[in-house]
Amino acid sequence: MAQRNPDRSKAAGADPADGGSEDLVRYLQDQATEFLRALRQHRESGAPEASSSAMALRRAARRISGTLHTFRPLLDASWSDELRTELAWLSGTLAREHAYAERLERLLTALQRLAGSTAPIPAQAATAGTGQLTVGAAKAGALLDRQLTLARTRAHSTALQALGSSRFHAVADGVAVLASDVPLRKDAAAHRLAPFAADVEARLCDAVQTLPLVRAGHPYNAEALVHGLASDGAPETQDTPWHQVRLLLRLHRYAQEALGVRDFAPHLVTASRALDRHRDAAEAAAAASAAARTPRIAPATAYALGVLHADQRHEVEAARFAFKGAWQRVESGAAVSTP
Amino acid sequence: MAQRNPDRSKAAGADPADGGSEDLVRYLQDQATEFLRALRQHRESGAPEASSSAMALRRAARRISGTLHTFRPLLDASWSDELRTELAWLSGTLAREHAYAERLERLLTALQRLAGSTAPIPAQAATAGTGQLTVGAAKAGALLDRQLTLARTRAHSTALQALGSSRFHAVADGVAVLASDVPLRKDAAAHRLAPFAADVEARLCDAVQTLPLVRAGHPYNAEALVHGLASDGAPETQDTPWHQVRLLLRLHRYAQEALGVRDFAPHLVTASRALDRHRDAAEAAAAASAAARTPRIAPATAYALGVLHADQRHEVEAARFAFKGAWQRVESGAAVSTP
Repeated sequence: MAQRNPDRSKAAGADPADGGSEDLVRYLQDQATEFLRALRQHRESGAPEASSSAMALRRAARRISGTLHTFRPLLDASWSDELRTELAWLSGTLAREHAYAERLERLLTALQRLAGSTAPIPAQAATAGTGQLTVGAAKAGALLDRQLTLARTRAHSTALQALGSSRFHAVADGVAVLASDVPLRKDAAAHRLAPFAADVEARLCDAVQTLPLVRAGHPYNAEALVHGLASDGAPETQDTPWHQVRLLLRLHRYAQEALGVRDFAPHLVTASRALDRHRDAAEAAAAASAAARTPRIAPATAYALGVLHADQRHEVEAARFAFKGAWQRVESGAAVSTP
Repeated sequence: MAQRNPDRSKAAGADPADGGSEDLVRYLQDQATEFLRALRQHRESGAPEASSSAMALRRAARRISGTLHTFRPLLDASWSDELRTELAWLSGTLAREHAYAERLERLLTALQRLAGSTAPIPAQAATAGTGQLTVGAAKAGALLDRQLTLARTRAHSTALQALGSSRFHAVADGVAVLASDVPLRKDAAAHRLAPFAADVEARLCDAVQTLPLVRAGHPYNAEALVHGLASDGAPETQDTPWHQVRLLLRLHRYAQEALGVRDFAPHLVTASRALDRHRDAAEAAAAASAAARTPRIAPATAYALGVLHADQRHEVEAARFAFKGAWQRVESGAAVSTP
């Protein structure tokens, strides 16, 4: 990490600069241009699906939002705060449909693996006949399919509405301003970017310190399933600090990009992916347990959902283990030496 | 292992001998005496519970049976085969009650952990009111308590009947013969024990080679839960080779004891314990899934049993991981150098 290895950005990236406000302006303009390009493409292609243009739109929105946050002292504060809020609303709204689709696929793939089946799960619901538990898996798949497809359809409508709203047009106008003229504070030119980026990195390191990494480094610690049957809130509570680190890792990445570091250290990429998997598995586990609370389901269906929930919490634990391994390599400086 | 480290028994044990028939006679007589002593104590104390005398009885029975098997060519074959069959029947019958009690305790402890509870689970069934899932855990605990206590009571009656049967008295008579006069074959004195012990060890090594150890060495491989919802037989099929190694490891240990090796190599003890845990968790997982097939249970109960089943299969996987680690140390020769 930067405070331990001051040469990091030099070694990991192509640009050795610690960055000035002109780099910030260039980065924000690039992302704003990318946002507008994706938006144009998206409007031409039609529906706000999980298409490449929607992903590019969200990708740029996240970067603009994160950069406005990290380098806030260099920017017109009230203007950037407002744009940030609106971008968060937009990317949240656009992300939901894709998230439901991915969650369903993750759960159905897991069910298929657990049922030792080769055919897709929901299609089997009508025909399965080999043992009560297989029927349970098929019914659980059909139930999840119904619930998550409904949620996805709703998210789709919401996204469509959002893209036609005046609120959205205001966001697009804000980004268009950014593409031509970044509203810097008057004294911005006197500052370097590196201290702000280092601040994000320090916050990231602090957040990682609060994680139970020693425990996560022991495989099969069964931590992720502790309180798995307790109440609705319990697993989410233990996941929160990990989700927090995931967001800080992202913020760190965008700050490095603004500084001109083109290749994010590979172990940080691995760590970041592990936390993405952590988030996905945690939400899939929650969806399985929510489906089990559907009234009047068969016991075999509920049983299958219980197995599925535990399987996904197992994945949560595996992701923490993977994060711990990657972070260890980051800390031991391997991130610096690896090309 | 012996074929790789011929000095092993010298290094690990106190007695450097490769053993002759007189060692075999002494070992069998010792175990037979121990069996009769435990039996006397057991009769005096009363019920065939999981008491120390019942455990000592089974412990001696396992050792006699294993030794008769390994050194069969040195013994009167038909006599020892018959005694072996009868000892297997006896220790199986006596073990069952204890096994049900342990399984129930393992499952209730796991449920308590999963429910994030401090109070014992079955007692909560009537009072729990914080969320449907906690009720499910409490009801699952009560169901398992009912089913396994019933099984335990039946096993208790069977064990009582067995201890009063003429079949049992015939076994006791057979062991009494062994305590005074081991029926060796005439040419037994011409043989050393070491080749027979080495043969057991070779079978153990061969059996370990067939295990998917590479996969087991990768934590969170999710192997143990594959086909977890498929049908009743699937998990048992993948467990079988591990159970087989567990039995061979035991046989190896008894053969070493007969040779006069007093301290079994510590990593082999660790490996052996891991496979005990593997067996216990596999059977507990099967009990949870069997309980889920009880007619007319509530969905919340079935859900809790599904989570519990997956949790125990997770333990199965963890035990394989632990075995792999211990076995690696055995193979790298650490078993030899460790005192």
